[in-house]
Amino acid sequence: MFIKAVSGRCDCIHMLLNPCKHLVYSKPNPLKVIKCRAAVAWEADKPLSIEEIEVAPPKAHEVRIKIVATGVCHTDAHGLHCTAEPADKDSMSLPGVNLGTFPMILGHEGAGIVESIGEGVTNVKPGDAVIPLWLPQCSECKFCLNPDSNMCTKLSETNQTIGLMTDKTSRFTCKGQQLYHFMGTSTFSEYTVVSDFSVAKIDSAAALDKVCLIGCGFSTGYGAALKSAKKSALESCRIGGGTCVIVGVATSGTISVHPFHMVLGRVLTGSYFGGWKGADDVPKIVSDCISKKIELEDLITFTLPFEKINEAFELMHTGKSLRTVLVY
Amino acid sequence: MFIKAVSGRCDCIHMLLNPCKHLVYSKPNPLKVIKCRAAVAWEADKPLSIEEIEVAPPKAHEVRIKIVATGVCHTDAHGLHCTAEPADKDSMSLPGVNLGTFPMILGHEGAGIVESIGEGVTNVKPGDAVIPLWLPQCSECKFCLNPDSNMCTKLSETNQTIGLMTDKTSRFTCKGQQLYHFMGTSTFSEYTVVSDFSVAKIDSAAALDKVCLIGCGFSTGYGAALKSAKKSALESCRIGGGTCVIVGVATSGTISVHPFHMVLGRVLTGSYFGGWKGADDVPKIVSDCISKKIELEDLITFTLPFEKINEAFELMHTGKSLRTVLVY
Repeated sequence: MFIKAVSGRCDCIHMLLNPCKHLVYSKPNPLKVIKCRAAVAWEADKPLSIEEIEVAPPKAHEVRIKIVATGVCHTDAHGLHCTAEPADKDSMSLPGVNLGTFPMILGHEGAGIVESIGEGVTNVKPGDAVIPLWLPQCSECKFCLNPDSNMCTKLSETNQTIGLMTDKTSRFTCKGQQLYHFMGTSTFSEYTVVSDFSVAKIDSAAALDKVCLIGCGFSTGYGAALKSAKKSALESCRIGGGTCVIVGVATSGTISVHPFHMVLGRVLTGSYFGGWKGADDVPKIVSDCISKKIELEDLITFTLPFEKINEAFELMHTGKSLRTVLVY
Repeated sequence: MFIKAVSGRCDCIHMLLNPCKHLVYSKPNPLKVIKCRAAVAWEADKPLSIEEIEVAPPKAHEVRIKIVATGVCHTDAHGLHCTAEPADKDSMSLPGVNLGTFPMILGHEGAGIVESIGEGVTNVKPGDAVIPLWLPQCSECKFCLNPDSNMCTKLSETNQTIGLMTDKTSRFTCKGQQLYHFMGTSTFSEYTVVSDFSVAKIDSAAALDKVCLIGCGFSTGYGAALKSAKKSALESCRIGGGTCVIVGVATSGTISVHPFHMVLGRVLTGSYFGGWKGADDVPKIVSDCISKKIELEDLITFTLPFEKINEAFELMHTGKSLRTVLVY
């Protein structure tokens, strides 16, 4: 089950990393389009289709990543299912989560190796182990500067919510057609391109086929993974500060809260990306996984080859898996 | 409108306060039953009746207070209205708020002067200006020792919730009949008896006909006094930490909360007694009133003589008053 992180270095990158080996350091060749496999969601509620796609080079402040492993999550299924009209999309979609933008490449729980970087990228370099972040951390906006919030404004200021990169274009094409990105990550592709504020550099010793799950946002608190039991969870909190945290991006169903349960000091709140600031905290969580403080193995029911992605969705829908990890 | 705090000192108290004036300091006479006026709630949904009642002396760890002023609040109306069966009472009543225990003396927003104290009382002495606390602060229980909670266990461990003092008896009688206490305070009486953990000593310079309102628990935060707009209040909170606090002891109506509004980091919670630890915080709030940091005047629509208590309820029910203060 343990798959070592594999390197996506090409000769060009090797040269970048080891310039002293070359007598004459020449500017590397312009980055090229990569052809690779991806699971394309051509339309709503249809199985994904494994296709050969083209992945354009990263532009300025972008990072191209060779994805090693990706989890399959209900949020991906939500993205595949949703055919909401624009009006509904506005009212119900969550910042950074594009819905109904077909054709697109889903996936947001990935881990991989930086293949190349665009101009101006300083936080990662080719060869780094990374986790793409669907919740950015620009480290400059008012939320990033607030220690109590992780709601980076890049989430809504950029074009992630409409499935495009910051410059309103896509890096993916298939059969001559543009494919939308999903949640700024699109990890259901062997190679993907993300913004530099949407990537966390992690310890290269990490098992990428495990820590990819952290890309979803990760709750380590007691009582996590509650689903339909939100109301009971709230009522079972102790008075005087007991806190019920809604985890995940559920967009249907409401909780009926009686003020009686609140006035005694219970707290109902939610977390986006587990409340973590991605670039700062994801590496720490990964370190806790390496040191076995956090055990991710229990969350992974199956590990399958990438080609079995539709089977992974089926295992999730039928309740046979908590998480299936796909490896490329 | 401004009424100076009046002293309830009798000769006996005067002697206690000024023992040096007496050549021979003798133990004061045993405390006597006091006859005074009170507004008695004989049965549900009937006007209160101004009666002459008897108020027994304070027992050990109890304090007898001459009430100078009291506010009239919806929680008093709720106590007067409620005829819930015991089963419903269990499910819906709030700790410390007794319902349907007729005949009783309502009132929980009072301010007054300590008239006498029982054995073992050390936190107040006769002559002190005080505010009775419907939410006790024993300063010993796990909640009192927790800086983030004010849910003193005395609230439910003692017999306040069934309308009696700690020893399961009442200090009030009228026409030979025992009257129940209400919320441990019963401020609709010229004299009342409370437990020593249910009283806050305040600055004697305070205008008791204003600061009595603090006895209700007091919210000073932005957006306070929201009533039916709880859901809108929550949704209008900013993402990433915006907090909606339900204030007051509403026992009907639910709030329909969509997880969508929570996952972006909004917080829904409630406060009991405004989240304050009564004995510690009420004196500070009173000081802020004296220094005009907090203006209570805007909350007081009418100030009426105690005899007009039923008119005060009517003014509240018809929406003509936010608060009416009654002075004895």
